[in-house]
Amino acid sequence: MSKPEIRKIVILGAGRLAVNLSMAILKKGYDIVEVYNRTGTKGISLSRKLSARYIPEPEMITPDADLYILAVSDAAIPFLLERIKIGNRLIIHTSGSMKMDVLRGVSANFGVIYPLQTFTSRTLLRFRKVPLCIEASSRKNLHLLKFFADSLSEKVYTINSDQRRLLHLSAVFASNFTNFMVTISQELVLENGMDFGILEPIIRQTAGNASSGDVFKLQTGPAVREDRETIREHLKLLTNHPDYKEIYDLITRNIIQHKKKS
Amino acid sequence: MSKPEIRKIVILGAGRLAVNLSMAILKKGYDIVEVYNRTGTKGISLSRKLSARYIPEPEMITPDADLYILAVSDAAIPFLLERIKIGNRLIIHTSGSMKMDVLRGVSANFGVIYPLQTFTSRTLLRFRKVPLCIEASSRKNLHLLKFFADSLSEKVYTINSDQRRLLHLSAVFASNFTNFMVTISQELVLENGMDFGILEPIIRQTAGNASSGDVFKLQTGPAVREDRETIREHLKLLTNHPDYKEIYDLITRNIIQHKKKS
Repeated sequence: MSKPEIRKIVILGAGRLAVNLSMAILKKGYDIVEVYNRTGTKGISLSRKLSARYIPEPEMITPDADLYILAVSDAAIPFLLERIKIGNRLIIHTSGSMKMDVLRGVSANFGVIYPLQTFTSRTLLRFRKVPLCIEASSRKNLHLLKFFADSLSEKVYTINSDQRRLLHLSAVFASNFTNFMVTISQELVLENGMDFGILEPIIRQTAGNASSGDVFKLQTGPAVREDRETIREHLKLLTNHPDYKEIYDLITRNIIQHKKKS
Repeated sequence: MSKPEIRKIVILGAGRLAVNLSMAILKKGYDIVEVYNRTGTKGISLSRKLSARYIPEPEMITPDADLYILAVSDAAIPFLLERIKIGNRLIIHTSGSMKMDVLRGVSANFGVIYPLQTFTSRTLLRFRKVPLCIEASSRKNLHLLKFFADSLSEKVYTINSDQRRLLHLSAVFASNFTNFMVTISQELVLENGMDFGILEPIIRQTAGNASSGDVFKLQTGPAVREDRETIREHLKLLTNHPDYKEIYDLITRNIIQHKKKS
């Protein structure tokens, strides 16, 4: 392995991902020289934390950093790519669904580091435990990015754009949709005057189960038991929540189907 | 508080809940005298672990225990209640959805201990952390059951049948449906030749988020961002899974709706 060549870094974006990623980068001793962000308050706040310059316009970004990290929403990427001038410096995005090739026009050297985690604005996560999925435009760039990613996290995976897209979709089910199931659960508990803390242990246990082999083998509850009477009763309890009733009905039918297949 | 009067206990059932509950009871020094179970293999196996007699027919159950615990499926409860003779000894069931009153015919003293947890057959859970929801037919019985439940778990809640039913429904969303979301996620990852371990951190983090205030505030992903392009792309990726596509579409629409309401 050659010495890593990435030293000076520019961060584009100041949202939850940008904050978590750049704080992890800072901690590893890299030199974050600039932070670009469309809205000043967040951009200035992050740039102060990083002792970096705040850049309000993409056209003003320095052209001589070693790495440019797009940590903005997918929708903002084309806008930025049209405006920045970075010669053939290495640039990456951090999106789960954008193809790596969207970066082709702006530089000959590009790649992706996709952190497979859900970032809240409340707390910084332990970045060393965040899986990083990397992809690059050449072997040399992959080598550079791998070295860089390895310095930030214990879990670095080299995958292609199709796999990344698929992982992102899988994470929508495993994280976004589970969070919404818990949202519904919480709403039902609170509107009946109970303490949601009572459900905390079962939520933790369910998540813990996900680490062991075939998750469907651990499926419990009325659907997988085909306990039609409880299912009927639950649908009746949801009369005032037609939207949740529809979700209950659809997922229950799917669980029963899945059991028959497996 | 008077001295607890429960010493001799009969367990009816030998499934995952019966095993977890009776092992916790045994550890606390209670005397489990008999285990009834419809199928002999599981019943004999559990009775051996507990140094209890195995009872193959409900009619043969001793009438002089202090507590009878129905830890069977809801469907099996009426069958058992028709056959056991226990005078007015204290009997409880452990179901999330059965009303307490189903026990009225068999004894004047009855109640419920509903453990709000998902039990797998693989490992015994730390029972002290399992929330126990109790209900009883009289103040005296509530006192007895509270004392008993407190000896088994740190988290004992006194709730009525309506609340318990509602908690059970909430747990279906928070546990059974989240497990199925993870099942779908796992299937997608595995069929594309990737390692499911990559999703473990995001699943854990999502579950951890559930312990803090308004869960919907932590909702991330394309639905809550109303990122129509990614949603469209995900639906396209699910072309070969019309069932999962339907779930993706319904939950996504609900998340967008929920955001507008909140």
